[in-house]
Amino acid sequence: MTVLDRNLADMSETRGKIRISEIFGPTVQGEGALIGVPTVFVRTGGCDFRCSWCDTLYAVDPAFRADWKPMSAAEVLDEVKKLSGGQPILITLSGGNPAIQPLGSLIAMGKEEGFTFAIETQGSIAKDWFADLNFLTLSPKPPSSSTSFDKDALAACIDAAQANAMLDGPAITLKFPVRDEADLMFADYVRKLHIGIPVCLQPVNTTPAEPHPDGADGVDIEGLTERYRWLVDEVAKRKWFDVRVLPQWHVHVWGNLRGV
Amino acid sequence: MTVLDRNLADMSETRGKIRISEIFGPTVQGEGALIGVPTVFVRTGGCDFRCSWCDTLYAVDPAFRADWKPMSAAEVLDEVKKLSGGQPILITLSGGNPAIQPLGSLIAMGKEEGFTFAIETQGSIAKDWFADLNFLTLSPKPPSSSTSFDKDALAACIDAAQANAMLDGPAITLKFPVRDEADLMFADYVRKLHIGIPVCLQPVNTTPAEPHPDGADGVDIEGLTERYRWLVDEVAKRKWFDVRVLPQWHVHVWGNLRGV
Repeated sequence: MTVLDRNLADMSETRGKIRISEIFGPTVQGEGALIGVPTVFVRTGGCDFRCSWCDTLYAVDPAFRADWKPMSAAEVLDEVKKLSGGQPILITLSGGNPAIQPLGSLIAMGKEEGFTFAIETQGSIAKDWFADLNFLTLSPKPPSSSTSFDKDALAACIDAAQANAMLDGPAITLKFPVRDEADLMFADYVRKLHIGIPVCLQPVNTTPAEPHPDGADGVDIEGLTERYRWLVDEVAKRKWFDVRVLPQWHVHVWGNLRGV
Repeated sequence: MTVLDRNLADMSETRGKIRISEIFGPTVQGEGALIGVPTVFVRTGGCDFRCSWCDTLYAVDPAFRADWKPMSAAEVLDEVKKLSGGQPILITLSGGNPAIQPLGSLIAMGKEEGFTFAIETQGSIAKDWFADLNFLTLSPKPPSSSTSFDKDALAACIDAAQANAMLDGPAITLKFPVRDEADLMFADYVRKLHIGIPVCLQPVNTTPAEPHPDGADGVDIEGLTERYRWLVDEVAKRKWFDVRVLPQWHVHVWGNLRGV
């Protein structure tokens, strides 16, 4: 049984429920086009990928499955409202891969009460409800992740988001973690498949998160910053003036800590 | 003679010329709504303010006036094109206060060739050409700057930018440097005067830039990061979920160095 098969099997056991790894905030989004925007994170458990440098293994590795709580859309929204004091806020759906979860009802219910929704997903699985999001970040995983890229799956995600015509769907961003030159070439290849969609590049945090034993030693901030400087130099040299270069700022501020 | 009087006198001596402190890039914008966007900076010399924690005194203090080169719009654009390899890029006009310079021709010429324009100004002086910008960042200086705030001047800047109706002018952001609670209250007061204009808060870098003697010792990165965490906590506590909290990221990456 593959990881994906297992996740699909899980879903049938708890039909309609969302498998939640953690809900936390308000804090700010630390990366991508919404960097610095106040948000509550809803992190789902389970992923169809297993990136070599995954920084949220506790929401990916089935060894942590017992920590993932099946919750209804109403239960998730109640928990978010507790954290936000009842006030509408941006809800960021992350994972794992949140696209394997049944999130359509949560988005519909939340939007009725004034909440806005962003999702972070690798672009391997498309869902109809992508069209109802306010922000869709697609983060195709580059060669250094040791995963394989399915360009048709990514295109299907963009099509799903734009199903109600381009002006009515979410703002889409392609966000590429970059460790090295091969990753940079991958980003360039993929962005050229989807001209017109804004692109962010970010240095990969190669320090795995706790509970990985290396996570406890803290993050190599100087290494991350050096990789950022390298990325800016590469972007300038290649004249990619339409590409944004952003850090995983939350790692600089809070390290690999959970819940921030 | 006040600083402002001196600057106005300077301008009449070199009519139509732009007083340039430095032109550098391509690098990325380090702060505000355009954080991470590739850009060439055009920094003008001269300022009508003298903030207590000014981080670019070399473009403010008249003692450095001999370093400010009067250049025509065509000369500035040529220099930018040399740096960008002829390719259109975002040009960020900064200072000092660039609003005291005659920048209308530069913007018109550059836009014809595909360049886009952002400006960073404190909002003390309005110019007709604000309406021709792509991005206008107004950064009212809070109490900790030891300058005084003129709310009519700020409103005049917004009116000038929106002179051709709101849909045709630049994207406007209010960006507040914040050192302490009094600064936070100031930001709240000003943003409520201009509901609907997006707001960024950023921790003040209180380490003055070189050539100030303290600048050479490097920036207190841990202090800046701690102030960022405090700002996020305050924003969360006060439920200001429509306000972005962003660092002066370039200071974390390159310190107080010039030319980055």
